[in-house]
Amino acid sequence: MNNFNLHLPTKLYFGKDQHKELSNLIPAGSKVLMLYGGGSIKRNGIYEKVKGELANFEVLEFGGIEANPQYSTLLKALEIIKSEGITFMLAVGGGSVIDGTKFLSSAALFEGDEPWDILAKGIRTEVGLPFGTVLTLPATGSEMNSGAVVSRKEIGQKRAMGGPGLFPVFSISDPTVVASLPERQLANGIVDAFTHVMEQYMTYPTAATLQDRISEGILATLMEIAPTVMKEPDNYEVAANFMWCCNMALNGIIQKGVPTDWSIHAIGHEITAAYGIDHARTLAIVLPSMYRYKIDNKDAKLAQYGRRVLGLEGADRAVAEAAIDATEEFFRSLGIGTTLSDYQVEEVASFPSKCVEAMEAQRTIILGEKRDIRAEDVRAILQAAL
Amino acid sequence: MNNFNLHLPTKLYFGKDQHKELSNLIPAGSKVLMLYGGGSIKRNGIYEKVKGELANFEVLEFGGIEANPQYSTLLKALEIIKSEGITFMLAVGGGSVIDGTKFLSSAALFEGDEPWDILAKGIRTEVGLPFGTVLTLPATGSEMNSGAVVSRKEIGQKRAMGGPGLFPVFSISDPTVVASLPERQLANGIVDAFTHVMEQYMTYPTAATLQDRISEGILATLMEIAPTVMKEPDNYEVAANFMWCCNMALNGIIQKGVPTDWSIHAIGHEITAAYGIDHARTLAIVLPSMYRYKIDNKDAKLAQYGRRVLGLEGADRAVAEAAIDATEEFFRSLGIGTTLSDYQVEEVASFPSKCVEAMEAQRTIILGEKRDIRAEDVRAILQAAL
Repeated sequence: MNNFNLHLPTKLYFGKDQHKELSNLIPAGSKVLMLYGGGSIKRNGIYEKVKGELANFEVLEFGGIEANPQYSTLLKALEIIKSEGITFMLAVGGGSVIDGTKFLSSAALFEGDEPWDILAKGIRTEVGLPFGTVLTLPATGSEMNSGAVVSRKEIGQKRAMGGPGLFPVFSISDPTVVASLPERQLANGIVDAFTHVMEQYMTYPTAATLQDRISEGILATLMEIAPTVMKEPDNYEVAANFMWCCNMALNGIIQKGVPTDWSIHAIGHEITAAYGIDHARTLAIVLPSMYRYKIDNKDAKLAQYGRRVLGLEGADRAVAEAAIDATEEFFRSLGIGTTLSDYQVEEVASFPSKCVEAMEAQRTIILGEKRDIRAEDVRAILQAAL
Repeated sequence: MNNFNLHLPTKLYFGKDQHKELSNLIPAGSKVLMLYGGGSIKRNGIYEKVKGELANFEVLEFGGIEANPQYSTLLKALEIIKSEGITFMLAVGGGSVIDGTKFLSSAALFEGDEPWDILAKGIRTEVGLPFGTVLTLPATGSEMNSGAVVSRKEIGQKRAMGGPGLFPVFSISDPTVVASLPERQLANGIVDAFTHVMEQYMTYPTAATLQDRISEGILATLMEIAPTVMKEPDNYEVAANFMWCCNMALNGIIQKGVPTDWSIHAIGHEITAAYGIDHARTLAIVLPSMYRYKIDNKDAKLAQYGRRVLGLEGADRAVAEAAIDATEEFFRSLGIGTTLSDYQVEEVASFPSKCVEAMEAQRTIILGEKRDIRAEDVRAILQAAL
C-alpha cells in the first residue's frame, strides 16, 4: 500500500430536509452569493426551499452556470463577487455548479492577472473563498472533494484544478432531489460514479485489500440499484444509496494507497470539448475501448472485478473479456451509447487524429496507471470507439 | 437509510515514516505534553523517533497510562497540563493512551468541579485542548474518531464520552509498528476491529446497501489477513491493511444511516471493570452468546453475513447459526478465549447476577438495536458465556 494522507473536512448533512440546517451552517453576517444552473431548481422547488432558509443573510444570486461550466460565464460571477464584496458562496446544483463555484472560490483570492492560469498552469489552491453546497444531482462527488473541472470553449479546452482550499465547508445531500431528475441525468450520474470508481480500482492487483473491497462494494451497489433508480427515482431508499455511492466514489477514500488511472477521463474531456457530449457519456464511450486495448495491463484486476462484482467464472483472460462486455452492456442498459457514432456527431472518422493533436498541443500525452499510454494508443483507443 | 451527518476533520498521515511530518503538524510555539503508556515505545524505538521530531518545541512527558486508562492516573496528567500551561498534547500509543488524552482534552477546558462528571453525566465535549496522535497499536480506531472510554477502578466503572471537540487534529499511522507487537495485542486488535464492525452491521436488514457492502469488505479483509498478521507481523502490506481496517471500522463511515447495536461493548465493559480482562477478549466472550440469544432479531442479517463474508450456503436460519459458530471459531483461531472460564477468573458462576446488578446501579439496562435487551437477557447471555 502506498503512503497516503487523508483529510475530509467537509461537513456532510445527508438525508431528508437537511436544508433546514443552512441558516446554522452559513457564518452569521455573511454576504452570500447563491449560484445555480439553468433554472431547474426553480421548477422543482429547491430554489424556494433554500431561499427560505437564507432570510437572515444578504443574498445575491447568479444563475445560468451551464453543464461543463464555462470560464466566460464564471468570469461574470467573479465580477459580482469582487464588486459586491461577497464573503460566502452557496452552490445549489450538480457537479457543474459546484465545480464552477470552486473555480470562483480560487479565483476570488487569486493574485495573478489571468484566472485561467489557475487551470492552465495547474496552480494549487491552498485557501479559497469559503462556500457550501446544496446538491441537486448526484453524480460527480464534487460536493465532498476539492477538485473541479472548467471548460473554455473559445480555445476548445476542459481543464482540472484542485487544492486543499477547495473543500466545501458543508454539503447538503438530500436524496429526495433524485425524484425530480430526468432519465438522462439519472443514467449519467450512475455511469459517472461507476467510472470514478473504475478509474481508481481498475489498474493492477496491489495489496490494498480493503480499498479493493470498498470499491467493489460501490460498483456492486450501483449495478444493483441502477434499474430501480431508472424506473422509480422517487424510491427514497434507492435514491439515498445512489447519492451515497456518488459521494463515496470520489470523496478520496478509495484512491488512498493505490495506483489510479484517470486516462478515460482525460480522453473523455476531449470528446466533451469537441462535441459537447455529456461528461458521463464520454466515459461510457472510452471505457470499454480503453480496457480492451489495455487488457494486458489490466487482465488480473478485470478478472477480480468479473468474479467479485459480476459473479463470472472461468480463466482470468476469459473473465476479463467477459467483464468488459458486461460493463458495456450495463451502460447500454441505462440508455447510454458506448460508441461515438451513437451520438450522431460530425466528422467522427477524423476525430481520433484531431483529438490526439489537441491533447498534444496542451501537453505530452502520458496516461494510465503505468504511464504507458501515448498518442498512438489514444488514436487506437478512439478508433475502436467510433 | 436514516439521515446522518458526517464530519471527519482529523488529518490522517498513513504509511512509512510519516512521523517526519510531526514538526509541521504541531502548531509552532506549542508547549507540548507527550503522553504514552507503559514504556514499550522506549523499547521499540518509537519514542526516539518521535522525540527527534520535537526538537523545536518545549516538550514535557507523561508516561504510564495503562490499558483501560484509569481516571486516577489521568488526574495526575491533568495537574501537569494546568500547572505547566500545556497548549498541545501528543498521544503516542494505542487506544488507551489516545482515549486518555481525549479525556484530558475535555477535562483541561472543563469548568465544573469534578471532571468525572464528563463521563458520569454524559457531557458532550464541544471544544477540547488540541492534540495529535502517533498510533502504535491498531485496534480501537480512536485515532480517527471523537469517542473515548475511561475506567475508574475505585468504583468499578468504565464509561464512554465523546463530542466534536475530541477529534485528533492529526493522526500518524505507520504500519511498521505492527512488527513490534506481541501476539496478544495483534489478536486483540483484530477482534476489536472485527467486533466494531459487527456492532454497526449485525442488526437487521435495512436498505443501506452500500454501508453493508463496506462493512462486509472490512470483515472479509480482517478474516483474510488475520492468519498472516499473526504469523508475519513484519509483513508490511498485511500490516497496512490491518491498520486501515481498524481505522475504517470506527471512523464513523459505516455507522452512517444505519441502526447500531453496541450491546456487546456495554456488557464487555462490565467484564473488564470486574476482572480486568482485555477489552477485545471481553467482546469475544459476549459476541457469540449475544448472537445466539438474539438470533430471532438478527437471523436475516446473520444469513447475509454468512453468505457474503463466509461463503456459507443454505436456508437463512442454518446459515445464521453456522455464521455464529464460524465467527467464534475465527476468534479462537487467534488464541482468543470465547468463554469466561477460558480466563481462569474467580467466582464465574455468580458473575452474571453481579454484572446485572452493577449495570442496573449505573443506569437502566436498555440495550440492542431494538432496545429490547433488559436485565434478564443480560443475565442469560452471560450465563451462556461462562
